[in-house]
Formats: sequence, structure tokens, C-alpha cells
Amino acid sequence: MTRIRFHQELDELKHRILAMAGMAEQAIDLSVQAYSQRDLALCQRVLNNEAAINRAEREVDEFAIDLLAMQQPMAIDLRFILAVIKINADLERVGDQAVNIAQRVMNMIELAPADLPVDIPAMAGRVRAMIRDALRSFIEGNPDLAKHVLAADDEIDRINKEAFTSLSNCMQSKPDCAVQALDALSIARNLERVADHATNIAEDVIFWVRGADVRHGAGQTLAGS
Amino acid sequence: MTRIRFHQELDELKHRILAMAGMAEQAIDLSVQAYSQRDLALCQRVLNNEAAINRAEREVDEFAIDLLAMQQPMAIDLRFILAVIKINADLERVGDQAVNIAQRVMNMIELAPADLPVDIPAMAGRVRAMIRDALRSFIEGNPDLAKHVLAADDEIDRINKEAFTSLSNCMQSKPDCAVQALDALSIARNLERVADHATNIAEDVIFWVRGADVRHGAGQTLAGS
Repeated sequence: MTRIRFHQELDELKHRILAMAGMAEQAIDLSVQAYSQRDLALCQRVLNNEAAINRAEREVDEFAIDLLAMQQPMAIDLRFILAVIKINADLERVGDQAVNIAQRVMNMIELAPADLPVDIPAMAGRVRAMIRDALRSFIEGNPDLAKHVLAADDEIDRINKEAFTSLSNCMQSKPDCAVQALDALSIARNLERVADHATNIAEDVIFWVRGADVRHGAGQTLAGS
Repeated sequence: MTRIRFHQELDELKHRILAMAGMAEQAIDLSVQAYSQRDLALCQRVLNNEAAINRAEREVDEFAIDLLAMQQPMAIDLRFILAVIKINADLERVGDQAVNIAQRVMNMIELAPADLPVDIPAMAGRVRAMIRDALRSFIEGNPDLAKHVLAADDEIDRINKEAFTSLSNCMQSKPDCAVQALDALSIARNLERVADHATNIAEDVIFWVRGADVRHGAGQTLAGS
């Protein structure tokens, strides 16, 4: 494989992981919309789309591994391919979270609507912005934007903790809402995990572009330089 | 680097990932012991050990990536190194689950003991067996043992669903136990996620040894042949 051909293949890999990302983003959007509208058909669409996301994950993985096997990539290309392999796994897990949310919503639809002390759509909006920024930092190779994503994650953790407190209080004071509150609590936690995956993606972008491993604060000096 | 030297480095990589695995296993054991004994000091040990697990993850990752960068590994060695990179990420997440469990236990210790309809130690025992088998399948390069782990995961999902049902019923019938029940429910879910990580490790072993991607049932024909 010539270097030019190899770079065409890297572009193809980027194209494929972005298609995969689009599927994962759509799954989250549909599941949150299903929550807001109590719409069973939207839940079903999320469940039906899972197989396609899983298939896309396998195909991206195989493509990336074939590239590693056929070429001896330079340092930055090697890091790019490894970053894609990791981002791919995170996107598949975002899809899993969408399925979890859809299943909770299906449970909630069977119950009487409850007035719950949590704003799931607002939380989802922030999480979606994190995914969008993480993916844009990947497309642009922009580590500064990726660092924004890392900062936003702390805010989501705080919102999730607040939701936990208010919903568990609600369970005690209004036992007849306990199941709905538990479902909402699960959905908040699923969104918090989506934010974790966005954070992982941002870290992988920084690793790729800068060669620094920023996980668990290890690269803070480097990343800040 | 000579081929002999390269294989020594692969052995060193295996040695390091197994040391990492030992730390993750210990974290889960301590957190479950903390639950059984309502022991705050054990919780604290889990929290204190997290930084060491995160550091070990980074070191294994860097070592694996250096090996990929310095050598052009043959197909099976390439798959081995990629499997280690993925297993490493799963083990770090097992450590995160142990921290989540310890935090829940710390919450429970502050409350009056409640008689909850869930057997966490029994569930934990099954999950621990899955991790042990997944790691043994890795050490022995034994895909048959890895397939056992995949089968065991369905059982854990069933146990977790049962725990969810019985604990959410308990929350409604005994609102004064709602917070403890919610903590136990979180712990059951954390254990279920540990089982998912054991499953991922088993899949990575099969990928390494057989070159088949068994995720999401894709390689069932191959894996069964």
C-alpha cells in the first residue's frame, strides 16, 4: 500500500467512525424524545436500531485493525488508529445507554404520569452538547475543544447527584411515585454515563493530537502547555 | 528489537496486565467485604487504591502502544496487544465499579441496617467467578473457558433484574427503607456492570486466540467450529 493510498484509507476510517457517531447520536436523541413525549414507537425504534450500531462497531474495528496489520503506521497515524478503536467502543456504549433509556421509558409509559423533581431534557441537552463538542474536536483535531468537554463532565456529575437526592427524597415522601422516580433516576444515570463516554472521546482526541495521555489527570501539565 | 526480545516484551506486557487485574480484583473483593461487614475502613481503602489502578492502566497502555510503535507485530501478536489494550480499559472500569460500590456502602453505614430482599454477597460471588474465569482464559489462551464466561453473563442479568423488582417493591411497601434499598439496587447494578466487563475480557481473549470477533453474536459460527 502506498502512503497516498494509506492516507485515503485513514480518511475512509474517519468517514466510517463519523457515520457510526451519527447513529449513536440519533439513538440518544430518539430515546430522550421518547421520554418527553411518552412515545412507545420511538422507544421501539431505538431498540430496533441497536443491531445496526453493533454491526457498524464491528466493521469499524475490523477496518482499523486491518490498517494496523497491513501498514507500519507512523507515530501520529498509529495514535489516530488507536484513538478510533477506542472512540468506536465508546460510541457503541452510547448506543447501549440509549437502549437502557428507551427500556425505562417503556416502563414509565405503562404507569400514570408523575410529577418528578428532575429535568431530564435539560440534562440531556447538556450531555448532547458534550458529545457534539467531543466529535467536533475529533473532526478538527482540536485539543482545546476537547478540554472543554472534560470540564463539562464535572457539571454533569453534579446534576446527576442532585437528581439522585431529589428523586430519592421523592420516593420516600410519595411511595406511589417510587417506580417512576426510580426510572427517572436510572435515566439520569444513563445520561451521566453518556457524558463519561463523551469525556473518553475527548481524552482520545487529546492523546491522538498531542501524544499525551490525559486520563485521570496524568497529562495535565502537558495538556496545559 | 530482535524477535526474541520482542517476545520477552510481550511476556512483560502480560505480566503487567495481570498485576493490574490483581488490583481490580482486590478492589471488588474489598468493596463487597465492606458491604457485608458495614466497614468504613474497607471503603476508604477502595477509594485510596483507585489512584494506583488508574496509574497502572496508563502504564500498561503506554507499554502496549510503544510495542505497537516499535515493532510490526505479526497478526496474532498484533491481536494480543490490541486485546491487552482493551482488557486494560475494562479492568480500570472494574476498579471504578468498586469505588461506586464503596461509596454506596459508606452511605448505607450511616443509616440503620435494613432487611433487604437481595443477596449481594451471592451475586458478587458469581461475578467474581466470571472475572476469575475470564482472566484464566486469558492466561491459558483458552477460548472454551472464555465462552463459559459469556454464558454466565445471562444469569447475572437475570439476577440483577430480580433484584430490581424485589427492591423497587420494597421501596414502595417500606418507604423508610427506600434509601437503603436504592443503595443496594445501585450495588447490584454495579456488580452487573463488572460482569459485563468480564464478558468483554472473555470476548477479547476469543478475538486474540481465534481471530474471530464474537461481539454481539457475530462470530458464533466461527467460535462454535
